[in-house]
Amino acid sequence: MSRPEAWIVTIGDELLRGEIVDSNKSFLSERLLPLEIESSRHLTVADEAGAIAEALREAARRAQVVLVSGGLGPTRDDITSEVAAETFGRPLVRDARAIADMRAFFARFGREMAPNNAKQADFPEGADVLRNPLGTAPGFMLEQDGALLFFMPGVPRELYRMMDEEVVPRIRAKLGGPGVVRAALLRTFGIGESNLDALLDDLVRDDPDAQLGFRTSFPDNLLRVVVRAPGEAEADARLAALVGQLRERLGDLVIGEGESSLEQTVGELLSGRGLTLATAESCSGGLLADRLTDVPGSSRYLVAGYVAYSNQAKIRDLGVPAADIEEHGAVSEPVALAMARGARERSGADIGIATTGVAGPGGGTDAKPVGTVCVALDDAQGSIAYRYTLMNERGRNKQMSAHVALDWLRRRLLGLEITSETFPRLRGEQGR
Amino acid sequence: MSRPEAWIVTIGDELLRGEIVDSNKSFLSERLLPLEIESSRHLTVADEAGAIAEALREAARRAQVVLVSGGLGPTRDDITSEVAAETFGRPLVRDARAIADMRAFFARFGREMAPNNAKQADFPEGADVLRNPLGTAPGFMLEQDGALLFFMPGVPRELYRMMDEEVVPRIRAKLGGPGVVRAALLRTFGIGESNLDALLDDLVRDDPDAQLGFRTSFPDNLLRVVVRAPGEAEADARLAALVGQLRERLGDLVIGEGESSLEQTVGELLSGRGLTLATAESCSGGLLADRLTDVPGSSRYLVAGYVAYSNQAKIRDLGVPAADIEEHGAVSEPVALAMARGARERSGADIGIATTGVAGPGGGTDAKPVGTVCVALDDAQGSIAYRYTLMNERGRNKQMSAHVALDWLRRRLLGLEITSETFPRLRGEQGR
Repeated sequence: MSRPEAWIVTIGDELLRGEIVDSNKSFLSERLLPLEIESSRHLTVADEAGAIAEALREAARRAQVVLVSGGLGPTRDDITSEVAAETFGRPLVRDARAIADMRAFFARFGREMAPNNAKQADFPEGADVLRNPLGTAPGFMLEQDGALLFFMPGVPRELYRMMDEEVVPRIRAKLGGPGVVRAALLRTFGIGESNLDALLDDLVRDDPDAQLGFRTSFPDNLLRVVVRAPGEAEADARLAALVGQLRERLGDLVIGEGESSLEQTVGELLSGRGLTLATAESCSGGLLADRLTDVPGSSRYLVAGYVAYSNQAKIRDLGVPAADIEEHGAVSEPVALAMARGARERSGADIGIATTGVAGPGGGTDAKPVGTVCVALDDAQGSIAYRYTLMNERGRNKQMSAHVALDWLRRRLLGLEITSETFPRLRGEQGR
Repeated sequence: MSRPEAWIVTIGDELLRGEIVDSNKSFLSERLLPLEIESSRHLTVADEAGAIAEALREAARRAQVVLVSGGLGPTRDDITSEVAAETFGRPLVRDARAIADMRAFFARFGREMAPNNAKQADFPEGADVLRNPLGTAPGFMLEQDGALLFFMPGVPRELYRMMDEEVVPRIRAKLGGPGVVRAALLRTFGIGESNLDALLDDLVRDDPDAQLGFRTSFPDNLLRVVVRAPGEAEADARLAALVGQLRERLGDLVIGEGESSLEQTVGELLSGRGLTLATAESCSGGLLADRLTDVPGSSRYLVAGYVAYSNQAKIRDLGVPAADIEEHGAVSEPVALAMARGARERSGADIGIATTGVAGPGGGTDAKPVGTVCVALDDAQGSIAYRYTLMNERGRNKQMSAHVALDWLRRRLLGLEITSETFPRLRGEQGR
């Protein structure tokens, strides 16, 4: 049996004028992968009845699943429901439960529902209404010409939740092949996509019920694992087994599972162990502290951060010996070490972590070209410092420095070794 | 005469799988605005001959301008040129100059051209080749069925440059109405889109040759200005006059022109005046220093940054009086002021700038809810501190705190006043 085809239709003048980047389409496409549905066409049209009707008719005729986003709001521009009703010859019918949900939504904010919101509770006859706990625009499903059409709001967070909670289960119920599909996401750092593929391919090559997918989210590579089995328990077991094999083969290159970021992982480890941290940043310029403080509750473990861009700041605020800077240069392992130690001692934190480097575009020399970065860590167990040559442009050198520092923290907190071979690709020469 | 219609077609399995967000479409759409061409449909199809052929045929039949991106690379998947040749019945012809360009491109990196690159120099007969100075894949233009079709590579930076240097001039030459079009971009902060529109609309309402467009790039609102005039000198003069009127009306709400960021503007002002800066961050958590250090050469003026998340760090590293924290709380104007002063004095910088606030989601109280943020600045002229209530979630509270601090620096360096009325929308209650 061939895989069902999906079309994704987004509606909105603002998309066609380029005012916003349409990230809903990539989200929706990715969510179709574990369902084994192939997204074969993406289409964006204006808030204009003729254009919407044409797209809906064509999509319903050619695809088995149609995901539509946008045009469900309360304003005059929002005409998707009306056009769908008209196109498929179904009168609009007001849904009492949707009206009640909307009133409750406004009541939570101490406001009355405006009259123009009521039209958001009108759906083409026969529609299955999809709840929207995050906004006023419910979605709906139509079965038409052998296709399942899902209409969702354009606001990304509302769409994300509706897709996961309302749409995916309906697609699965209606079109799910034999058996149950389960998926997981592994986040890796320090290995390229083609190497990942080569390293792991034999684990799934001869298994039609298991699949690996790769995606880059700089500087990480994400690995999506999808399995299918006759029952829920078997699918769970199959997924756990495959994830176990992948983790075994990849070892400490796996930095997390699911959508959680490296700073979240580090934050959980610090919290769990009751440890505190201080940062000392030169080349990462505050980005490391910024990422750490993106995590709610980070004030519990991040006690101080220093952005010591100048030599004077390194000496004054972190106690780096002037002689070390003179002898080895500001970008050197000894200075990185003194920064990490200084941050730890001055702040009384359990761990000090430091970056110093040449972010570029200026400041490079033959001995220390742009992209030369030293990272150092100091804690009760001792201290470590290594030098990397990143060879990226300024923004990515900053990102990579902060990322390596975060991964050092993760490794240290997990009791993993950090050696000169920890990131072989970042030492001396790096691809790109 | 009605405006010409454009279709944008992007090609690539990775787009349909959702592996990358397709930002090329919004870029291309935006570039069509000043040409007065309406982008009426966006379409994404797989690297598959049938799907590409169908999209090209349909686009050529229905649009006057077709912008195609992707599938021009050297691998087997890259079949756009072949499919275009086949679809429009034009044999592929090898272009000698494109081959020479490609060899020169590889020579610059000391490498030989691989044999599979040669196919990138094959174009459908009659094509006008578009040079690609940043990569190996040239683009091409076809005139077919009354439409202009432009084929560009999918790599964003190569596409951006080709669109601006090769495609836009050709569209202008072929379809440009009478006269010359000029455009400018103004970046504003502190005023909402609908207020901007209401405030400025009368300047262009009755002028068919002038147009204003709005776009949000949180927390800024961008204003695109487009004018048309019979000759180049007149168009330049008309644009300058309109930009002058807009700037006069908006006053210091305009924070920059063109694509330059607020941190670039601040950096140029600091460099130009030979002044140095130190940051003291609590709620912005390093983001302010991070943004300042995104600017190449920022080490000349950013002498030190402190991320003083804990009370101890505020006292120890910045000399904030413990009594101030006890009496007013860590989120208060007096503590913000002491932080700014401490950063300035300890680092010897000319200017100290500080943020302290409740980023959320935890930590709010009735008196100081999540989103309460104090900003303070201290320099030779004196010191200022104000409190804002931002009412966003954590990430946006961090962004907004850093942005307000940067805009304070811009204002101070330009000799503009900073008063309690500087950002009326951010005080007490803020719209969304």
